[in-house]
Amino acid sequence: MLHAVIPAGGSGTRLWPLSRADHPKFLLPLTGTAQSLLQATVQRLAGLVPLERTFIVTGQPHVAAVAAQLPALPAENILAEPGPRDSCPAIGLAAAVIARRDPDAIMGSFAADHLVGDAGRFTATIRAAVAGAEQGWLMTVGMKPTRPEVGFGYVQCGDLVGDGPIRRVRRFKEKPSYAAAVELVDSGEYLWNASMFAWRVDVFLGELARQQPALHAGLVRIAAAWDTADRAAVLTDVWPTLPRIAVDYAVMEDAAAQGRVATVPGDFGWSDVGDFRNLSDLLPADRDGNVVLTGDAPARLAPVNGTGPDTVLVRDSHGSVVIASGGRLVSTLGLKDIIVVDTPDALLVCARDRAQDVKQIVDAVRRQGGPS
Amino acid sequence: MLHAVIPAGGSGTRLWPLSRADHPKFLLPLTGTAQSLLQATVQRLAGLVPLERTFIVTGQPHVAAVAAQLPALPAENILAEPGPRDSCPAIGLAAAVIARRDPDAIMGSFAADHLVGDAGRFTATIRAAVAGAEQGWLMTVGMKPTRPEVGFGYVQCGDLVGDGPIRRVRRFKEKPSYAAAVELVDSGEYLWNASMFAWRVDVFLGELARQQPALHAGLVRIAAAWDTADRAAVLTDVWPTLPRIAVDYAVMEDAAAQGRVATVPGDFGWSDVGDFRNLSDLLPADRDGNVVLTGDAPARLAPVNGTGPDTVLVRDSHGSVVIASGGRLVSTLGLKDIIVVDTPDALLVCARDRAQDVKQIVDAVRRQGGPS
Repeated sequence: MLHAVIPAGGSGTRLWPLSRADHPKFLLPLTGTAQSLLQATVQRLAGLVPLERTFIVTGQPHVAAVAAQLPALPAENILAEPGPRDSCPAIGLAAAVIARRDPDAIMGSFAADHLVGDAGRFTATIRAAVAGAEQGWLMTVGMKPTRPEVGFGYVQCGDLVGDGPIRRVRRFKEKPSYAAAVELVDSGEYLWNASMFAWRVDVFLGELARQQPALHAGLVRIAAAWDTADRAAVLTDVWPTLPRIAVDYAVMEDAAAQGRVATVPGDFGWSDVGDFRNLSDLLPADRDGNVVLTGDAPARLAPVNGTGPDTVLVRDSHGSVVIASGGRLVSTLGLKDIIVVDTPDALLVCARDRAQDVKQIVDAVRRQGGPS
Repeated sequence: MLHAVIPAGGSGTRLWPLSRADHPKFLLPLTGTAQSLLQATVQRLAGLVPLERTFIVTGQPHVAAVAAQLPALPAENILAEPGPRDSCPAIGLAAAVIARRDPDAIMGSFAADHLVGDAGRFTATIRAAVAGAEQGWLMTVGMKPTRPEVGFGYVQCGDLVGDGPIRRVRRFKEKPSYAAAVELVDSGEYLWNASMFAWRVDVFLGELARQQPALHAGLVRIAAAWDTADRAAVLTDVWPTLPRIAVDYAVMEDAAAQGRVATVPGDFGWSDVGDFRNLSDLLPADRDGNVVLTGDAPARLAPVNGTGPDTVLVRDSHGSVVIASGGRLVSTLGLKDIIVVDTPDALLVCARDRAQDVKQIVDAVRRQGGPS
């Protein structure tokens, strides 16, 4: 039986000032509708997995917000991390908890803050990945690259498994330089690593035990206490001792070297919504190529087509992103390729081609104790 | 005896959202110090005229703010207009009131919202203008043009009067096209009309009586009641009947044709602070050419040299204007020639070369009843 795990961590630094440590990207309605990225992720999985088998792994500070956004999700399906320890402890915790309940479970892992354009093709791809997982593969969903992106890792495909569409994965490749990314894409052998996985929980936990025995032991100990009165004590005791490590490095790289990883190429309009430039490629634009979102707070944004209502006046502007969530009038005149993001306590005005560098601003804001 | 008159009208539309109908440009500290433009104007005149002979003509809604900014000014020297009727009624009212007290007075008129770079040269120029006024000329101070500006009117100079520096004015020329402005500047005969005047009040009122008899009669009637219990009743009765007209058209153009106008060329770093681009030419810039002002409200702005304190983060930006008066963090990244003006209830982001078109935004804001 398929279980869906949604690790909801990371603040989405490059979407500051919309995203904040206390109101991260996955809670924001950056989907082109009133839904948050998290809500859209859960809805996208609804055809594959019922809510009873859908799990969110998130930081303790976000449990209440997640529960509020997903009122139909059983409360016990929100797994609260006492502190951030990267993706392998988060995903491994879910795997260990699910394995206690259903040792034969298949588990898919899906980021909470990505967007998918074609839900039907997404579902078909995940079904193929689940079929591969049932055969014992550690499955990843690889995205057909549409540009030489330096912000993602890549997976190198090998031979087809049977008649396909599953292919063996020869290796994982970390974020490349631009020149290397051009080569990877031109080769036709590489797919983007979208951090979407499917596997049998026993297969994954076996690999974890082989490669990360201390992490595995800690997670098994926590899982054993999960449904008991000791959960909080064991978590407090064990969680801080777990290594901070991403699942790609902890498990997938060497598993690929051992011939245990396979992939399904996906082509369903996927985006990690990494920065404002990226966001503007996903949301509907007016005839001048401007993407305009408005709302009285970052949590209540909605797209505007055209020059918008009272809160936004966009004049003679092109290729720009205007996000008005500060409760005040935002006006632009004569802009070209500029990002304007207004919130109640912070404003960002940024060249579109510098959107990936917003982290520099956030770092400076943090250093001075500002709103981040 | 010289009297200074400072008509303080006009909202400074192109400096929106800093300037507002209820908080106009002359009240704003856009001087490079904590002083407002009005305060700087009064201080600049202090070496020429004592406060007892300095008069501010302003709209009734601004009387309290003017008094608060100029606590040493006698309250009776603030002449309140019941409503805006352009510059000739404002200046004429002051002339008529002053003439009742001192029929031989010389009066200088100085805009409340202009900047002067060199106060010493300004004072010398005004002394020369006053000397011309004593001889019976309607004096104007003409600025040596530094560019073919289409936003100003021009005066055409004629022969020297005596040994100079006073020159006869042959004619007033309204705001020209760009091509015409180039010709005017190249000719060497034209000066910018900076709306700075000096004259004997009797000479001015004589010209007003000749050219605008109804306006003259109305102002004389108001002045006669000014120091009586009837002031309010007469103002209410007469003021709304006065023609709306600028002093240039009402008096100066035909007076020049009659050979009664002369000018002193001025060269003291004058600016009308017309728009944000213009403002940025006047205030100190950081090494990347950015002008940064910050304060917790538009009324409390001060310049920042460099990247500024906590409320402003300017990164990799050039030739930009960043005004943070919204009480929130303002951050910019990778901007070139962009104007960012944040206030508590409205934000403007504008290309620097479109600064003169901000009025279009204000018009749209007014149409929808927004903050203007």
